[in-house]
Amino acid sequence: MTGKVYLIGAGPGDPDLLTLRALRLMQSADVVVYDRLVSPEILAHVPATTRRIAVGKSSGFHPVPQDQINALLVDLCRGGLAVARLKGGDPVIFGRGSEEAEALTAEGFAWEYVPGITAAQGVAASTGIPLTHRGLATGLRYVTGHRARDAALDLDWDSLADPETTLVVYMGAASMAEISAQLLARGMPADLPVLAVSQATTPRENRLRATLSDIAALAAQAHLPAPVLFVIGHVAGLCDQTALPAHLAAPAVCPVLKLVPHG
Amino acid sequence: MTGKVYLIGAGPGDPDLLTLRALRLMQSADVVVYDRLVSPEILAHVPATTRRIAVGKSSGFHPVPQDQINALLVDLCRGGLAVARLKGGDPVIFGRGSEEAEALTAEGFAWEYVPGITAAQGVAASTGIPLTHRGLATGLRYVTGHRARDAALDLDWDSLADPETTLVVYMGAASMAEISAQLLARGMPADLPVLAVSQATTPRENRLRATLSDIAALAAQAHLPAPVLFVIGHVAGLCDQTALPAHLAAPAVCPVLKLVPHG
Repeated sequence: MTGKVYLIGAGPGDPDLLTLRALRLMQSADVVVYDRLVSPEILAHVPATTRRIAVGKSSGFHPVPQDQINALLVDLCRGGLAVARLKGGDPVIFGRGSEEAEALTAEGFAWEYVPGITAAQGVAASTGIPLTHRGLATGLRYVTGHRARDAALDLDWDSLADPETTLVVYMGAASMAEISAQLLARGMPADLPVLAVSQATTPRENRLRATLSDIAALAAQAHLPAPVLFVIGHVAGLCDQTALPAHLAAPAVCPVLKLVPHG
Repeated sequence: MTGKVYLIGAGPGDPDLLTLRALRLMQSADVVVYDRLVSPEILAHVPATTRRIAVGKSSGFHPVPQDQINALLVDLCRGGLAVARLKGGDPVIFGRGSEEAEALTAEGFAWEYVPGITAAQGVAASTGIPLTHRGLATGLRYVTGHRARDAALDLDWDSLADPETTLVVYMGAASMAEISAQLLARGMPADLPVLAVSQATTPRENRLRATLSDIAALAAQAHLPAPVLFVIGHVAGLCDQTALPAHLAAPAVCPVLKLVPHG
């Protein structure tokens, strides 16, 4: 019997946003290895008899270093197990799934990506804001605000200062002061809308509507629990600052108010 | 009884990549309104007794103009129907879902986004290439090569010429000559890997591995059927030019060969 690892995107938090393939693999695996940012609502769908291993990986909270996670997955494969490796969002969009794949390939073990709804899409679904919209956002860009060991942010600021592209910052809570200052210094409008969403699509979802000039201060005050996603761009202005959704399956709680192309 | 439209991302093609919510809504709706790029494999999951309306929207093939689709959705809501509006990929990533939402809001009808696995994630899943990878791609960017009524491409070329960001071009088959020429003119490497994938995650998936300098000519010769996605960047070099996957659930057919940071 040969082991195999399924690098599975668990999506933003709501189990209803799991793919059919992800759910089936979670339910048939011999062992589930999961990050801290996989929601309890999703883990509730893992059979009670399945062995679970928490590796707790999340920005600023790394009880298990990446190389130890890699070694764990290789060991489980050596034991002939089918491993469901659950990651928040999508495994290959800032999920480091390819580093785990690389370690498995090096040892001759099979793996497969199972995509997940990434956080930006979860935010769109729960708030009702589109990620692209003709006249407001002609493209979409995902960057990470995570710094490896407090290194400087490695972002191409000139390229990022494009108000016609929706800019989504993953893991940006600790870097928003630098990100907003750099974008403002390159001519991005001070009143450009920004939406910060914490734990999108879960019952704990919370939102903060701000502008590029005040997002850093407001987010620092708000102490939003991880994961927090920042959506920077005109589309963010389509969402009012709203309370928690009464129920996630309810009609869009943040309706498109008025779509008028800017600038 | 009040009508409502669920703007549903049907994902890249493989029904196994539908979300649980999408499948349930497809199966409980009164009527399904779908685009040409929703795969037959996915439509097979709509109950045989459910009314289906094809609106055939896809780049270069618009039998039903957008305003008529909007009017159709409003009419169905007036009739008190629950409408599953199926779109390939994700409804708010180049899906024009927000234009339909806007039309519904204007008439006082409810709608909801149901996100879908977007084509770029489908390509990652079926080919095994990651969209971000430390040292190869620090971010991810989605643009569209679609031109409205043969207008010029409205892309910020200077900003796009960043070899450290994975650039994914949706609907780019007709624009690849211009896109590659503009990127080369701004100093992007001629040998930067490009992967074009047609109908990813379906049994008809086909792939073309090229470089920035030859992708336009090779893609023009290949006549790949829509939808075609272009992945431009170092991560695309992790995929060999391979034949069709023997089976979509097989182990990654295009394994990560060797991950060495470039430059």
